[in-house]
Amino acid sequence: MLTHSPAMECLIEAFRRLPGVGKRSAERLALYLMGAPEEEAARLAEAVRDARARITTCSICCNLTEADPCGVCTDSRRDRSLICVVEQPAGAMAIEKGGAYRGLYHVLHGALSPLDGVGPSELRVDRLMKRLEEGGIEEVILATNATAEGEATAMYLSRRIGTMGIGVSRIAQGVPMGGGLEFADDATLSHALEGRNRL
Amino acid sequence: MLTHSPAMECLIEAFRRLPGVGKRSAERLALYLMGAPEEEAARLAEAVRDARARITTCSICCNLTEADPCGVCTDSRRDRSLICVVEQPAGAMAIEKGGAYRGLYHVLHGALSPLDGVGPSELRVDRLMKRLEEGGIEEVILATNATAEGEATAMYLSRRIGTMGIGVSRIAQGVPMGGGLEFADDATLSHALEGRNRL
Repeated sequence: MLTHSPAMECLIEAFRRLPGVGKRSAERLALYLMGAPEEEAARLAEAVRDARARITTCSICCNLTEADPCGVCTDSRRDRSLICVVEQPAGAMAIEKGGAYRGLYHVLHGALSPLDGVGPSELRVDRLMKRLEEGGIEEVILATNATAEGEATAMYLSRRIGTMGIGVSRIAQGVPMGGGLEFADDATLSHALEGRNRL
Repeated sequence: MLTHSPAMECLIEAFRRLPGVGKRSAERLALYLMGAPEEEAARLAEAVRDARARITTCSICCNLTEADPCGVCTDSRRDRSLICVVEQPAGAMAIEKGGAYRGLYHVLHGALSPLDGVGPSELRVDRLMKRLEEGGIEEVILATNATAEGEATAMYLSRRIGTMGIGVSRIAQGVPMGGGLEFADDATLSHALEGRNRL
């Protein structure tokens, strides 16, 4: 019987753990790497090791960075009175790609999820509070995801920050740009209606 | 400006080279690995290196294997008079999963593609011919892909093998099992009609 060899199974298993990679994709990736030039496989292995070794989290904003503090936290041209709180580094990257935001970030590395055992102490909440206590911040924009966990996290943070005399806002939720109403789900539509702006 | 760090760009670039992985997927995979436990990233890097180091091609059938000759070539219960020729290891794996085939394999590691500079000498054709010259093979099943290159490769091999007094066959092409005629493309349908079997 022709089966995958142990080393191949091991590689397929490692690929399968990646997000969005199923059994068939993992198998395809592994078979591709076995047929690719040796340097290419070595380059991937090296890149994984190297990135993991070099990249750490910024001691101020907790975003991924090779230099600590990170490039955003040390950039004097950014608005240092504004912090945008996101769940993950990918969120900060997405906002940054938009190009409109010029303030600082704070990455929580997750969202509150009591059922999964994720409370405030599992997130980088204390570090955020420390930054706020140090003063100079005028507004915190809560840009956690529009999920139950993200909403709960935003509510929790807004309550804690509200008592400090610092402005708190939540990113708008509604119908995405260019999206027809017929493609929006019920929850999005009801949020879009609730959050309507007077013209 | 918040941009990916050099080590991150390097990792994203390494992921992007994998088949079916675009810019966004590569970024998602890289960000995931940076957030995953250190052991998980190490395990992936190690699995890539290890598989590449251990896995070689069988000196008989050219399929991927850790032991040379491979498990199929050394399995005495298989029909040693039958060779199924495929383009890639994935093809042999797909046929093997079907469970109906009990002969041997030969992996070409590609298909003839003159425009891409792939001629018979770029494939494992000589090794196949050597196997056939050694005798004992009664039939060669050409299971190259149903693409222009796969067809050309099958035609080329059938001409060369035909002169050796060995039976040559081509896997059937037609409408996939369970597929309605309305979903089949024109080329598949015309092949299915041409290859009709008398009942």
